Amino acid sequence: MTTRFEARDPLFEQRVRESFRMQPLMAFIGAELVAVTPGRCEIRLPFRNELAQQNGFFHGGIIGTLADNAGGFAAYSLMPHDAGVLTVEYKLNLMAPADGEMLRAEGDVVRAGRNLVVSRAEVHVAQGDRWVHCASMQQTLMTMHGKGVS
Amino acid sequence: MTTRFEARDPLFEQRVRESFRMQPLMAFIGAELVAVTPGRCEIRLPFRNELAQQNGFFHGGIIGTLADNAGGFAAYSLMPHDAGVLTVEYKLNLMAPADGEMLRAEGDVVRAGRNLVVSRAEVHVAQGDRWVHCASMQQTLMTMHGKGVS
Amino acid sequence: MTTRFEARDPLFEQRVRESFRMQPLMAFIGAELVAVTPGRCEIRLPFRNELAQQNGFFHGGIIGTLADNAGGFAAYSLMPHDAGVLTVEYKLNLMAPADGEMLRAEGDVVRAGRNLVVSRAEVHVAQGDRWVHCASMQQTLMTMHGKGVS
Amino acid sequence: MTTRFEARDPLFEQRVRESFRMQPLMAFIGAELVAVTPGRCEIRLPFRNELAQQNGFFHGGIIGTLADNAGGFAAYSLMPHDAGVLTVEYKLNLMAPADGEMLRAEGDVVRAGRNLVVSRAEVHVAQGDRWVHCASMQQTLMTMHGKGVS
Repeated sequence: MTTRFEARDPLFEQRVRESFRMQPLMAFIGAELVAVTPGRCEIRLPFRNELAQQNGFFHGGIIGTLADNAGGFAAYSLMPHDAGVLTVEYKLNLMAPADGEMLRAEGDVVRAGRNLVVSRAEVHVAQGDRWVHCASMQQTLMTMHGKGVS
Repeated sequence: MTTRFEARDPLFEQRVRESFRMQPLMAFIGAELVAVTPGRCEIRLPFRNELAQQNGFFHGGIIGTLADNAGGFAAYSLMPHDAGVLTVEYKLNLMAPADGEMLRAEGDVVRAGRNLVVSRAEVHVAQGDRWVHCASMQQTLMTMHGKGVS
Repeated sequence: MTTRFEARDPLFEQRVRESFRMQPLMAFIGAELVAVTPGRCEIRLPFRNELAQQNGFFHGGIIGTLADNAGGFAAYSLMPHDAGVLTVEYKLNLMAPADGEMLRAEGDVVRAGRNLVVSRAEVHVAQGDRWVHCASMQQTLMTMHGKGVS
Repeated sequence: MTTRFEARDPLFEQRVRESFRMQPLMAFIGAELVAVTPGRCEIRLPFRNELAQQNGFFHGGIIGTLADNAGGFAAYSLMPHDAGVLTVEYKLNLMAPADGEMLRAEGDVVRAGRNLVVSRAEVHVAQGDRWVHCASMQQTLMTMHGKGVS
């Protein structure tokens, strides 16, 4: 996770933020794009009861949604200006109850090929003043050359 | 997918429906538990713009949420009356744009062990009068003996 | 798993069998390509102690090898004559001890896109006169257009 | 990956090395257990033609075998003295051709629960004097309490 990447597109941050804003689901659940750097993206989501499963914790599907986006935008940050990004698949391990006030998903590119990108995301949940590691994701994405959103 | 299962708990349907109702996220996104039989569960979700990604299709995280629940409740239908269910992990392939009016996730138990259960789910999207196969999931669940919701 | 596929390449069987023969690992472990039809492939492997883990059962890595190949050749059977096939990723659930005399991996294409193909494989182990379902795989493959082996 | 673990069993290294030796497959393919520390395990495997796929590179199944074992023994190093370890599932991304003289799999525990452990493994291939990152794995393992090998 220590590999440093360089963005090919100097306007990558603007492009990622624009794509995030264009996803109605992010506003619907209340997610915030905290930071994006080349090959890395962090998204946070405050708890609200509507996002819970039967025990009052964040639902696993919401954890997957955040992880998918964090890994996906990490990948998208490295793509050419005119490209779109597509999630091919993701695999999520839920390791501890996501019982807390805030969810944080940090996505990191593992390897960026010309067409396929592999990302990972770590998801933590805030319990008082500590962050509990509650999920880990591994993901494959595809660069859609010439199919950017704008 | 043709294996037939028998439910150990004659009240399995009531138990699954109650657990579904206790997940606030299902009401929030508008999902409906259509049917549950031993080892099988179907959930549907009408499209609304709040659930979309940047192209106006169902967001991959929502597809994962539905698939996770369909596979999870399929597993839960086979568990003892006093057990709870926990998703250990799931892996989702997104195979076609989920561009349509309705999402349908069908979960099926592949193998039910005493502690671990493996499920799969197929997700289709309604485009006019046909159902397009848009995602496939494979999932591991754990039986939480003696930790049922009621 | 009931979808019927048509092979674009009338010589698909010969091409798949040739590719199987060109994998030294298959001969090394003693695997046999039993059958290949469009979108489907079956491989068998008799037990020998060299393939075992610490309890004398087939090693999980060998199960993965067989499943990867069964799913991969199922995908390859549908590809154009001049294409090569590449495994992007696979996910394998080991569901029961692979304790028996023979391993059988059946691979099936779930969806064949122009570039990406999703396959699954079921692995059974022969215990006397019955086949025990011991593993399930879900896999993503890529068509390498114009990069066939010959 | 920076979490430090402590082994509950002071004889963990001996136990892991003994289990490795008891897997006939490791000797058959020529794999060597290079190092094991609490929550971490490294395995190496020199290339030989018998392990190749059709292009003369390490076969994906062999990469999976090494990754499965590296992650599994990393998990096993943290388990109680009388426990056994079982791979529940693993997911492997193949990111670059494993074209080289030696394969190195490094397994790391991500989270060790009482029953379930999540590990990852990174696989590199030696090409002359550099190591190319060719595969990444994420894996779930189960502690079999009281079912150790000895």
